[in-house]
Amino acid sequence: MFGGFSEYSLIGDYVQSTLNSSAFTFESAPIFTLMEKEVGKKYAKMLNWETYDFIFCPGGTFASLYALTTSRFHKFPNVKFEGVNNLPQMNVFTSELSQCSMEKGAMVLGIGTNNIITIKTDERGRMIPSNLEEKIKICIDKGHVPMMINSTMGTTVFGANDPFEEISSICEKYDIWHHIDATYGGAQLFLEDFRKQHENAFALSDSISMDQHKVLSVPQQSTIFLTKHEDILEECNSTHSGYMSMQEKVLYDFHLEIGDKSIQCSRHMDIFKFWLYWKALSTEGLKDLIKKALDNSKYLAKLVKEHKNFELIIEPEYLTVCFFYFPEHIVYNPRDEAFWKEVDDICKKMKIEMIKRGNTMISYQKQLSSHKKLVNFFRPSITLGKEREDIDFLFKELIEIGEIVSEKENLMRSIRTSIILA
Amino acid sequence: MFGGFSEYSLIGDYVQSTLNSSAFTFESAPIFTLMEKEVGKKYAKMLNWETYDFIFCPGGTFASLYALTTSRFHKFPNVKFEGVNNLPQMNVFTSELSQCSMEKGAMVLGIGTNNIITIKTDERGRMIPSNLEEKIKICIDKGHVPMMINSTMGTTVFGANDPFEEISSICEKYDIWHHIDATYGGAQLFLEDFRKQHENAFALSDSISMDQHKVLSVPQQSTIFLTKHEDILEECNSTHSGYMSMQEKVLYDFHLEIGDKSIQCSRHMDIFKFWLYWKALSTEGLKDLIKKALDNSKYLAKLVKEHKNFELIIEPEYLTVCFFYFPEHIVYNPRDEAFWKEVDDICKKMKIEMIKRGNTMISYQKQLSSHKKLVNFFRPSITLGKEREDIDFLFKELIEIGEIVSEKENLMRSIRTSIILA
Repeated sequence: MFGGFSEYSLIGDYVQSTLNSSAFTFESAPIFTLMEKEVGKKYAKMLNWETYDFIFCPGGTFASLYALTTSRFHKFPNVKFEGVNNLPQMNVFTSELSQCSMEKGAMVLGIGTNNIITIKTDERGRMIPSNLEEKIKICIDKGHVPMMINSTMGTTVFGANDPFEEISSICEKYDIWHHIDATYGGAQLFLEDFRKQHENAFALSDSISMDQHKVLSVPQQSTIFLTKHEDILEECNSTHSGYMSMQEKVLYDFHLEIGDKSIQCSRHMDIFKFWLYWKALSTEGLKDLIKKALDNSKYLAKLVKEHKNFELIIEPEYLTVCFFYFPEHIVYNPRDEAFWKEVDDICKKMKIEMIKRGNTMISYQKQLSSHKKLVNFFRPSITLGKEREDIDFLFKELIEIGEIVSEKENLMRSIRTSIILA
Repeated sequence: MFGGFSEYSLIGDYVQSTLNSSAFTFESAPIFTLMEKEVGKKYAKMLNWETYDFIFCPGGTFASLYALTTSRFHKFPNVKFEGVNNLPQMNVFTSELSQCSMEKGAMVLGIGTNNIITIKTDERGRMIPSNLEEKIKICIDKGHVPMMINSTMGTTVFGANDPFEEISSICEKYDIWHHIDATYGGAQLFLEDFRKQHENAFALSDSISMDQHKVLSVPQQSTIFLTKHEDILEECNSTHSGYMSMQEKVLYDFHLEIGDKSIQCSRHMDIFKFWLYWKALSTEGLKDLIKKALDNSKYLAKLVKEHKNFELIIEPEYLTVCFFYFPEHIVYNPRDEAFWKEVDDICKKMKIEMIKRGNTMISYQKQLSSHKKLVNFFRPSITLGKEREDIDFLFKELIEIGEIVSEKENLMRSIRTSIILA
């Protein structure tokens, strides 16, 4: 996921390291603060949000933390001063295939992982709205408060987009904060068709988070948390510490003073590397790169489907391509337990061979969901700036690695067989 | 505070940006993970801790967050799964002069800022232990749980070190987690005398946090949270997400897999810039730099004391030097309200002039504590690698700026006076 590379964003990062500006006051990072404002405005425009507030933070888990604290504050503003002890138990809803940041956040916020309610997914790995509504009703019946629904734009493993519009409607119906975790899938916002398709959902949603360091080729870390609720971050997070900023100290418009919106004090400026990249490529240029990456992801899926030793698991909706490798000697076997055991096993062995070989590095894993129980499979994530030849190279490597590992296995198998006494 | 600079740490940061490794698995950042382990071990040795656990994180506020969540988990391990709703109200104790991260943390954890109990400070800006004990008793009488005491090594404004040993004893007596916020003052740990002086306190304390990006000349951000409680971070923060790491996936010793200790998923490696700096300078070299900076801080205090237009507020214990500027025309005036109003006013105007002039940049602020109520004063923080001449230059600038601003003010005053009709 971090395999993308751009000379612009890298130089931007060097400049930031050299200047070492901190965002806790405007004075210490004036230009970068203005750049943050510009990027925040651009994103808000993409979502068609007229009012908004945002903060940059070092990674998606912290953006999820902001989503959780902001949604809780929105429902119970006194939580800032009084804490949660006199409040009812809160529940957060998220797809069973969403990433771990809701659980991590629940541990930090004192909500508890048991109160993160996971929602079933369909055959494409998307949250099932009817299951969501069922679970909300159960939560309300218990006297709990449904605090937030976390939907995912681009799930980690399948790259699925949850049905945002239906989720937004449910949020409206039950007065629940809708956060869209677009940390991995946010690059899709650069595509007009995608924005058009989800405009109703965006109009109804409350917040979104995006990692620029995942798909958008920016060195770690650069994450934005954006909410439609104006000024809420200042209200929720400020402490007005005299040593950081006092209204009278400011030699400029006090509204430029955004440090106290953050839960951080000194905050590394992560904006220049992204701003420079965007500025250099233009929105149009970025869009083209993203489209090309999506084409590459479909192209890899095509190669997988055409080869008898591979099987595509889900038609890719985004940049992750999930597939099994079937070694030659079992490829026509019945798909029984023994078959899947071998598939599971060879995937692991191929990864070891891949690391030794040193040409490529992709992830593999098992996946359990209410819909599927998958043994080990590969799930490369296509990054920006790759060519068809790169995809061909990756696939060729996988074929060769598969053959090498299968041969070794066959040899071992025949040795074991020949030792057996008749 | 971020004014320090080292070519080693800067190059280290460039390398990190270029490699763009993430710490969520050992596989994606093997060498940097080993470097983290080495630095953690070195720090633990300085504190004389035989057992320990640690995590790097992007800044001091997040380290404070770890202190809060870890101490809560230590008292109530079920909080991870069940949240705080069935637990009593928790209280956290911190000096009235500590930085804002306890408040920020209390908002995030659902403790509430009202439950951060501030403790009075003495004439040197240090927490008063008797006041701490009083407040703990009140907390217990209310049926609240005293969860954590946050003491500060090097307060933001006065650079004071809280009386760690007395605080540690109180923590022992009432079974409270003792966290030392050494984000600013941690550089003192490199001094043998300092370590010797506080060894009993360290032996009794539970955790400590240090920003390498403050005094130690490392570009933002590089923070370590270190606790004496082995394995607690894994227990407190892990979610065991399959997509991040599965025991069977690991091609190496599973104990090298430290990503899940963190509340982050993708985590920027902040270690190389610091490791390289430390390696290049050696512990001895770092110690010498810190000693020299402490000398410079005393030297600036001496210059301040010897000049009639300046007044030192507190004899510096660390690297911050706090002082007033008295304009010439009031320097022998009685120290009444009018006097302090002018002192307050000229400080602000001098800062404006300083920014326009562009040669130096230091902070100023007011400070209210139970002991003092100070109008605006300057509080430069001395960074590593500065020479006597740099201190002389800063002081000369302040004198000149003071004179320029005073003259302007006098001119304005005489114009106003001459306009008044007799």
